[in-house]
Amino acid sequence: MSLATLDTTQHPHLTAAAATLFSAKAAKQLSFEQIANHIGRNEVATAAIFYGQAKASPEDIQSLASLLHIPAGPLEEQLSGFPDRGRSVEMPPREPLIYRLYEIVQNYGYAYKAVLNEKFGDGIMSAISFSTKVEKETDSEGNNWAVITLRGKWLPYSRF
Amino acid sequence: MSLATLDTTQHPHLTAAAATLFSAKAAKQLSFEQIANHIGRNEVATAAIFYGQAKASPEDIQSLASLLHIPAGPLEEQLSGFPDRGRSVEMPPREPLIYRLYEIVQNYGYAYKAVLNEKFGDGIMSAISFSTKVEKETDSEGNNWAVITLRGKWLPYSRF
Amino acid sequence: MSLATLDTTQHPHLTAAAATLFSAKAAKQLSFEQIANHIGRNEVATAAIFYGQAKASPEDIQSLASLLHIPAGPLEEQLSGFPDRGRSVEMPPREPLIYRLYEIVQNYGYAYKAVLNEKFGDGIMSAISFSTKVEKETDSEGNNWAVITLRGKWLPYSRF
Amino acid sequence: MSLATLDTTQHPHLTAAAATLFSAKAAKQLSFEQIANHIGRNEVATAAIFYGQAKASPEDIQSLASLLHIPAGPLEEQLSGFPDRGRSVEMPPREPLIYRLYEIVQNYGYAYKAVLNEKFGDGIMSAISFSTKVEKETDSEGNNWAVITLRGKWLPYSRF
Amino acid sequence: MSLATLDTTQHPHLTAAAATLFSAKAAKQLSFEQIANHIGRNEVATAAIFYGQAKASPEDIQSLASLLHIPAGPLEEQLSGFPDRGRSVEMPPREPLIYRLYEIVQNYGYAYKAVLNEKFGDGIMSAISFSTKVEKETDSEGNNWAVITLRGKWLPYSRF
Amino acid sequence: MSLATLDTTQHPHLTAAAATLFSAKAAKQLSFEQIANHIGRNEVATAAIFYGQAKASPEDIQSLASLLHIPAGPLEEQLSGFPDRGRSVEMPPREPLIYRLYEIVQNYGYAYKAVLNEKFGDGIMSAISFSTKVEKETDSEGNNWAVITLRGKWLPYSRF
Amino acid sequence: MSLATLDTTQHPHLTAAAATLFSAKAAKQLSFEQIANHIGRNEVATAAIFYGQAKASPEDIQSLASLLHIPAGPLEEQLSGFPDRGRSVEMPPREPLIYRLYEIVQNYGYAYKAVLNEKFGDGIMSAISFSTKVEKETDSEGNNWAVITLRGKWLPYSRF
Amino acid sequence: MSLATLDTTQHPHLTAAAATLFSAKAAKQLSFEQIANHIGRNEVATAAIFYGQAKASPEDIQSLASLLHIPAGPLEEQLSGFPDRGRSVEMPPREPLIYRLYEIVQNYGYAYKAVLNEKFGDGIMSAISFSTKVEKETDSEGNNWAVITLRGKWLPYSRF
Amino acid sequence: MSLATLDTTQHPHLTAAAATLFSAKAAKQLSFEQIANHIGRNEVATAAIFYGQAKASPEDIQSLASLLHIPAGPLEEQLSGFPDRGRSVEMPPREPLIYRLYEIVQNYGYAYKAVLNEKFGDGIMSAISFSTKVEKETDSEGNNWAVITLRGKWLPYSRF
Amino acid sequence: MSLATLDTTQHPHLTAAAATLFSAKAAKQLSFEQIANHIGRNEVATAAIFYGQAKASPEDIQSLASLLHIPAGPLEEQLSGFPDRGRSVEMPPREPLIYRLYEIVQNYGYAYKAVLNEKFGDGIMSAISFSTKVEKETDSEGNNWAVITLRGKWLPYSRF
Repeated sequence: MSLATLDTTQHPHLTAAAATLFSAKAAKQLSFEQIANHIGRNEVATAAIFYGQAKASPEDIQSLASLLHIPAGPLEEQLSGFPDRGRSVEMPPREPLIYRLYEIVQNYGYAYKAVLNEKFGDGIMSAISFSTKVEKETDSEGNNWAVITLRGKWLPYSRF
Repeated sequence: MSLATLDTTQHPHLTAAAATLFSAKAAKQLSFEQIANHIGRNEVATAAIFYGQAKASPEDIQSLASLLHIPAGPLEEQLSGFPDRGRSVEMPPREPLIYRLYEIVQNYGYAYKAVLNEKFGDGIMSAISFSTKVEKETDSEGNNWAVITLRGKWLPYSRF
Repeated sequence: MSLATLDTTQHPHLTAAAATLFSAKAAKQLSFEQIANHIGRNEVATAAIFYGQAKASPEDIQSLASLLHIPAGPLEEQLSGFPDRGRSVEMPPREPLIYRLYEIVQNYGYAYKAVLNEKFGDGIMSAISFSTKVEKETDSEGNNWAVITLRGKWLPYSRF
Repeated sequence: MSLATLDTTQHPHLTAAAATLFSAKAAKQLSFEQIANHIGRNEVATAAIFYGQAKASPEDIQSLASLLHIPAGPLEEQLSGFPDRGRSVEMPPREPLIYRLYEIVQNYGYAYKAVLNEKFGDGIMSAISFSTKVEKETDSEGNNWAVITLRGKWLPYSRF
Repeated sequence: MSLATLDTTQHPHLTAAAATLFSAKAAKQLSFEQIANHIGRNEVATAAIFYGQAKASPEDIQSLASLLHIPAGPLEEQLSGFPDRGRSVEMPPREPLIYRLYEIVQNYGYAYKAVLNEKFGDGIMSAISFSTKVEKETDSEGNNWAVITLRGKWLPYSRF
Repeated sequence: MSLATLDTTQHPHLTAAAATLFSAKAAKQLSFEQIANHIGRNEVATAAIFYGQAKASPEDIQSLASLLHIPAGPLEEQLSGFPDRGRSVEMPPREPLIYRLYEIVQNYGYAYKAVLNEKFGDGIMSAISFSTKVEKETDSEGNNWAVITLRGKWLPYSRF
Repeated sequence: MSLATLDTTQHPHLTAAAATLFSAKAAKQLSFEQIANHIGRNEVATAAIFYGQAKASPEDIQSLASLLHIPAGPLEEQLSGFPDRGRSVEMPPREPLIYRLYEIVQNYGYAYKAVLNEKFGDGIMSAISFSTKVEKETDSEGNNWAVITLRGKWLPYSRF
Repeated sequence: MSLATLDTTQHPHLTAAAATLFSAKAAKQLSFEQIANHIGRNEVATAAIFYGQAKASPEDIQSLASLLHIPAGPLEEQLSGFPDRGRSVEMPPREPLIYRLYEIVQNYGYAYKAVLNEKFGDGIMSAISFSTKVEKETDSEGNNWAVITLRGKWLPYSRF
Repeated sequence: MSLATLDTTQHPHLTAAAATLFSAKAAKQLSFEQIANHIGRNEVATAAIFYGQAKASPEDIQSLASLLHIPAGPLEEQLSGFPDRGRSVEMPPREPLIYRLYEIVQNYGYAYKAVLNEKFGDGIMSAISFSTKVEKETDSEGNNWAVITLRGKWLPYSRF
Repeated sequence: MSLATLDTTQHPHLTAAAATLFSAKAAKQLSFEQIANHIGRNEVATAAIFYGQAKASPEDIQSLASLLHIPAGPLEEQLSGFPDRGRSVEMPPREPLIYRLYEIVQNYGYAYKAVLNEKFGDGIMSAISFSTKVEKETDSEGNNWAVITLRGKWLPYSRF
């Protein structure tokens, strides 16, 4: 099985931690599923930590350091700040897989808004009080289906 | 309860059918959930038909016409072509609700890619062989949560 | 005193309600402060309703209709949907007053982030669970100062 | 408590001083609040100095050097010029926290303009004769609220 | 001599007043210099009023109405609001004359900043507390030179 | 007094000469006014040479080399080509001081065009056969005013 | 032979004169060469007048009116102002023929600059003191070649 | 006389050959005219080879190597591939000289198209089967004029 | 079977002919294949005529007029000019089907260039001396495959 | 014959593998056709592997390593991840050859959509379940023609 890796030539502006973590992951030949199981987090969240898009708790850092055989001190230093999110993908995304997700927003954006507004009123689905997961289904004809679930708290607009 | 409506002053370039359908929906005071139940489709798909982002079958058109009291002939004419998708939202989206979905792609794009690639190999989740739904959950503290599910066929890259 | 007006030649894509409301406001020669006092809302929120950036409650609509001598029925119809926010200003803003606000975000964005993160942890200040107000101060030398207050709920990132 | 840090891999074009200051701050484990108290400035202004968005006076430099144990000479050299502001955030901001501030301008821009114009006449709120602060409030239900105050001199347009 | 006119086919989104004023100016065959002399303002400011980029005082409106034989009432209505500046030129400007001014900013921007900062300290030249004028010089060889003067109040950055 | 300096971390793509010149200027603690007086040029032009936006004559190079104690040979080599102008500022400018100049073009562009066309006919004010200067005025209340003069040859469009 | 025409559905923002002139040209079935010969101007300049990119003299207007059987008064009114150039092509041009010209600038831009600078010194080729023409050549194998000549005055940068 | 040079600080992404060639040209103090004469090509084409915008034949490479005293082997290696054209100028060009050429396309684009279409039918002037040259003319008053000739094969659209 | 139609609300700037032709096609219920067969052209070329992207010969116009029952005179007038190509799709394309074609260029662009250069030398594949066709294949498992063939003349770069 | 090469100065952000592979290809003087024959893949796919746009199987890697005399270990490491596609070409493409392909999409995009929709119904041609090839034809007059075939699975939109 192939593993997701990071080519720093292509991503020179990801965090310093990204280089450290991906290189250790490659050396250990671990999948995000295995790492996520080890640190007790969802695998999308785990990958997001690697890409500098989610914050690791001190326990996550300890756990990653021990699993990946990275000295905990420097890793802690690299991960101690607050993530500077949103810099990994340039929009519109050129990567075909990520573009498909973008296209779903582009095509169904107003349909989601209409349905959400009718169900919940005036507000938004939070992307912060939020979790997501990826699942794999195989149908009776052997086709694989990817299922992505987005779950966000509904925030009504304040009246003022 | 408020209903999603269409202000054609704000959206002058949506399809001619959009104006027809939204105006009938407002007159009938129907929600997308009610319309979707009537025509036997998912409510996101139903809203997408209204916004010109999904194709209505001849049966859908008959059913919409009878529910909304629109003459079937002109509606058929307006809906007979192939949707010219992707024109309802200008990217990046400025609408806060739609922006939150865009932000999820921006922040978690590479995390999704990494996890999907490790689970399925080299390929993409289709946005065409695809369905989606919106659900409402209320937690024990009375908070509402929106749950959006994206389900797409996995397409492996052809080897050539 | 001059009043804020709307020139629909310049803003052809604001909501239909915007034209109705601004034209009645001009006819009645009312300031947003007066209208806000009448409907019992903050004046920024009141102006935001006029520009289609905030939702009016059924009571707001009644109150606006009676103050501005607009037939309540059509106004209700125009305002019954969910606001399609974010379409009034094209970014970067070219209007000098609005640009100054944009410039504050551009210059102090990371400083705000650093200070907020250290004070609250990893998260964001909500722009939805949010209120704002504008005040006028005059200093001892007779200079006027505008004071804008932004108050948003702190949303910590969910751990998942 | 986590502290705001700087990952120069992600921000290669911030000032040379930014790297010096953030690295000393991390070594000393000081928050912006502590540093601000020490140099007698507001904490947003202090963070802005770190990001190269505000000018430090000679006294600020001395004070920063002694608190952070940085040799004063080189720091003075790095900070002696005039800030080249506006280069830390690329607009539209991709960082979710900063985006929320941008969204406030995008949504309420014309509402602010209308209210300010009616209150002050034709002019702008200065972003130069300007100060800002961040405060934390906790409501009776234990929710935290961030309060950002923007205070700028009102500049009327000259008649010529 | 040719006069500056407005082709509303080309500028559909200028103010309603712009159409009124330019059409009266063309009918009366008046130059901006003549109009400026009549209303007692600088000719750039006068042209800016026509393009909706500067505010006319009630006296200006009376004076314009009588000179241009426009009914004062409707003109007052059209000009009573606050200018929505910055919408007449799309940047980068495509008009060669306006582009040359833009190019001056592009080429000499940092030189101006360096010289102004050394002369005045940390701050900006206001574009609000500001006036400008255009003059014509003819040198000894008969060449014409345009001289544009920009005069703005110096605003030092507040210390906070 | 502070002097304008260059932080090459922020401006990695200015000319090689810019780094040489600014670093010598900082070492010698010279203002652009002093350097301009020494080489017999206007101070904006002098700063423009430093930023690679104007050509230095062989005499200018000698004069700069001797004033700044830079070996003339390498400086000559660095400055011997033709300036590649326009690369120092990215448009729209994010630096507040430079943005104010840009805003003047954005707001008054068509007013300048109208007035210049009426005064000179169909043509442009050259930005090449062009000079500019910066002056400081102090009014009776002690306020400082920056005065920027732009003087360009008028070029009528050729008839062909 | 086909003639160049104007489809105002495609070009809604060209000048009012453009519609008048192109429609008369189509009715009279005249080529630009024939019109140019009649009014005594180059055919590119003639086409540029039609597209609102060049100024017609009073004599040109008379001559066009009589050739095209358009009432001179309204035409004079439409053409009496100063051209607002640069609005006919959106850059980058999408029209393949115009794109080829753009591509020549994109590919050979620095080569032209280098050769022109070495031949003429520091300066530019004017696009205002400028004429251009189009010629047709047929080589010995019967291939047609288009030859476009650009001739502009050399403007050296002023020393100041 | 000044020569065109390359400042690799400003153009870090030109080809490796560009650095080699320009540095040898500077050392030898040769103009493009001299080099062009030596290798038997047009000087624009020669400069285009230096900027990586045209292909050098094996004979050109030998000839350049011997004239510029560069070892032929490495030069051959650097020049052996196919040019990756179009990367030297970022559009819109910010360099004033190159911008003037761009402006000619922007202003006269449709005029060229109209005239070329009427002369040649439906098609384009090739930018590939194409040559160009730069000439200098001096008129009777001593003014210099730059003349650029573009000569491209006419390609009619295929009928299919 | 559904037919391709044109919704002029969505495409207000297509040619006047597009509206005429599509509306007749809908009335006659003809596919592009049927129309192409009738006029003796490829169906992509036929659709391109409808979208204003290809030129119709006088015979094509006659043939279209008789098949679609449109008066030949007005159609001739609408189609007599030269197509103003490239305005039907805004790039990047938002329509998913068209985006897939764009993505092929984005992903395989350099691969095509490398292979074409090695096969043909330095040059381009013409998009003018060019034809294209669409075919349908069904594989043994009943899956449909779309096959698009692009055939363009190879144009070598001229040596000059 | 010239071979396609990679100049990493021009493409600093291609994958690390790209540099390795292209440099070995140049040393071995192999064309993509030769390499493709050796590894048993299409030559466009082979070039796409070099540019990081397609995934190499373990067998491909072995085969490339042995043909190009690269140690298999490091190559495997560089190629073991999942391609991050779409980063080799910046859109719109500036390279003339690649631009021609882009232009085909821009001009014929809607024609392809119309024809494909009528032939296949509502859906897209996959760019993932996809192969492509390049062929060379020479016509009876000795002209070369490039033929590019795109073959993608037809994906109908799911009904939901």
